[in-house]
Amino acid sequence: MKELVKNQNRRRFLRGGGALAGAALASTASAAGALAGQAQPLEVAPWSKTPGEPALWHPYGQPSPFEDKVVRRSRGAAPFPGANSSMTPLQDLFGIITPTGLVFERHHAGIPLIDPAQHRLAVHGLVARPTLFSMDELVRLPSVSRIHFLECSGNTGREWKGPGTASLQFSHGLLSCCEWTGVPLSVLLEEVGVDPQAAWILAEGADAAGMTRSIPMAKALDDALLVYAQNGERLRPEHGYPLRLFLPGFEGNMSVKWLRRLKVGREPFMSREETSKYTDSLPDGTARQFTFLMETKSVITFPAPDHRLREPGFYQIAGLAWTGRGRIRRVDVSVDGGRNWQEARLQEPVLDRALTRFTLPWRWDGAPAVLQSRAIDETGYVQPSGRQLVHARGLESNYHFNAIQSWKVGADGIISNVQV
Amino acid sequence: MKELVKNQNRRRFLRGGGALAGAALASTASAAGALAGQAQPLEVAPWSKTPGEPALWHPYGQPSPFEDKVVRRSRGAAPFPGANSSMTPLQDLFGIITPTGLVFERHHAGIPLIDPAQHRLAVHGLVARPTLFSMDELVRLPSVSRIHFLECSGNTGREWKGPGTASLQFSHGLLSCCEWTGVPLSVLLEEVGVDPQAAWILAEGADAAGMTRSIPMAKALDDALLVYAQNGERLRPEHGYPLRLFLPGFEGNMSVKWLRRLKVGREPFMSREETSKYTDSLPDGTARQFTFLMETKSVITFPAPDHRLREPGFYQIAGLAWTGRGRIRRVDVSVDGGRNWQEARLQEPVLDRALTRFTLPWRWDGAPAVLQSRAIDETGYVQPSGRQLVHARGLESNYHFNAIQSWKVGADGIISNVQV
Repeated sequence: MKELVKNQNRRRFLRGGGALAGAALASTASAAGALAGQAQPLEVAPWSKTPGEPALWHPYGQPSPFEDKVVRRSRGAAPFPGANSSMTPLQDLFGIITPTGLVFERHHAGIPLIDPAQHRLAVHGLVARPTLFSMDELVRLPSVSRIHFLECSGNTGREWKGPGTASLQFSHGLLSCCEWTGVPLSVLLEEVGVDPQAAWILAEGADAAGMTRSIPMAKALDDALLVYAQNGERLRPEHGYPLRLFLPGFEGNMSVKWLRRLKVGREPFMSREETSKYTDSLPDGTARQFTFLMETKSVITFPAPDHRLREPGFYQIAGLAWTGRGRIRRVDVSVDGGRNWQEARLQEPVLDRALTRFTLPWRWDGAPAVLQSRAIDETGYVQPSGRQLVHARGLESNYHFNAIQSWKVGADGIISNVQV
Repeated sequence: MKELVKNQNRRRFLRGGGALAGAALASTASAAGALAGQAQPLEVAPWSKTPGEPALWHPYGQPSPFEDKVVRRSRGAAPFPGANSSMTPLQDLFGIITPTGLVFERHHAGIPLIDPAQHRLAVHGLVARPTLFSMDELVRLPSVSRIHFLECSGNTGREWKGPGTASLQFSHGLLSCCEWTGVPLSVLLEEVGVDPQAAWILAEGADAAGMTRSIPMAKALDDALLVYAQNGERLRPEHGYPLRLFLPGFEGNMSVKWLRRLKVGREPFMSREETSKYTDSLPDGTARQFTFLMETKSVITFPAPDHRLREPGFYQIAGLAWTGRGRIRRVDVSVDGGRNWQEARLQEPVLDRALTRFTLPWRWDGAPAVLQSRAIDETGYVQPSGRQLVHARGLESNYHFNAIQSWKVGADGIISNVQV
């Protein structure tokens, strides 16, 4: 804050570059008449003249009707019933917490509406005490809360083939960050007694797809959670109500929703979602499998193709950075397509495997510009360029695209998706 | 996490005290038939048999219909149109982020529905450049995001006269915690140029009450924000859409909603809300005025009178602690009415003037117990007992009650509000 204030002293934002036109009031207002009799009087708005809607107008609150364009959006029709996704409108959001109503969706057989009183979690396989847990029993166990991002490994996948859609929501919107509350999976495994031979756990959802993934035991004992709350309240139906697995930093598909079964075994279970899907084809005909970790990535969320700059002048470039490896250490921003880089300010707190908001003040001179951000995590990993990523992986992948994103600002203020 | 896991190794929760009854499965399930043929087979639930609701069932998501009791609630009818409050259901929440739809409300003339394109913020008085700002202009200024609690100074006010209602929602529910995004007020004041004589700012809302409070210049230049987003999205109408003042750690009433005017002056403006209201009467006939700071406080949110313990056994005591002075350093919990205290675990991150979640494992033996929590902040301030608070302030106050709260657990598992 001090740094920001000091920065202010060097120049003003609204008139410093003739950018914005905050309307000046003609004279200092009188104490009594407030702003009456001025060049531009402050009119009393209609909503200030009569009492408004009562408290509990909505016992569960809703956004303003003026914000009804800020919603999740889908690319189009589902290939078969219930298999679809919807994207978070990152271009309209602030800070690091994603409002739960706007957290992205990815379903393989639609959203089951589960009665929590009837729901059970079965734990079996290589355990001493196979057990069915009710939700009441799970919620009584010791719990923790953590703020973590969740990203689909297919996020930004269309960029593998060249510049994708001119929309941040559609290019990067399979990404959200919430406060998750639940029982450490390690606590549950202690309850049932895991066989020393056990090395993998099959997690199965109660949706009609019976979504299944294999989870390494090391992750299960480290920081995996059985989550029942998100941003303070119980999970929403589309996010796994009443129970989901949550694996911090791993691809979203593994955080199995509507969790109904955990089977402990010696080997991975080779389910559909880790053999025919969610693997990364390589140029030599082989594929990377079990690529769990979401690598370091960032994107500029303002300005983005979903916005248009109406005039030259001051703008605050803002964006998000994240890494499955831990904390973000630094984000650099370029406004000239990567020739020069400036270090962005990171908004505190910078949390382990959470979205990190970065900002950089920018005065746009009205000429074309190419905006990029490049994240560096605490392990020293540097977000690659598209060229570096393709050099390493080829062009056959659909998942795990984490390259630097370029937004081109045209002289007309229109912003497009480019690769430079 | 490590500490928690180590703790698990000493005893199991579900059977260690015969507390919970996780249903055992009779035999290890076969790989193919999953859990078929067991003493208690895992039935395939109806919602697992057909595809569920599609993605974008709700473009803006809603809670599960099974959670429809988790709503804001009001004590009763308003004394005059639009003057009312509603409380956050803290007993049903987890972590530290309050879902925006459940953030408490306090209105003096209802909720105005403001068109952001028409809304203006006027800044005038002892400034070099009196200015009208549009929302577009404000949102282009440098912004920051901060996670902070917001508490009405009337929260828990009924406890001044003895034990209040047996409900956490009604006793402590004028309390929430969100991520707030907006422009530092210091940035705006730099834009308009503040006279060196200036010492106070009048903040005025656009509601029909024209809610006004006087803000000290030191606070305005320190950490006050002009907030337009809450938990990642634009403010909700009931929380000040499209613009509110936010003063971290100060009583909620000062974070003026629907902000339309800031007037800079030399003296406090002595508005209704800081003279006839929001002052603290003392036994000697005088009153404390401008008691801005919300003092250190805590409350146990589970178990609370809104719950009932169905049987003896293991429970995780959970609660919230907060302080307008900075960070929480420690929370102690007693299960015997304050004779013995144990240090609770604080959930990371512990943030400046944010809610802090604390937990303590507890094995209830079925006998009556009195649960208390006592917060200590980083300045060394210790949350007072009710007796200490009344000794210092007398019984004439309505605001700023921050004493230790006692919940009595009866042998029948019913929980009541007591003062010990």
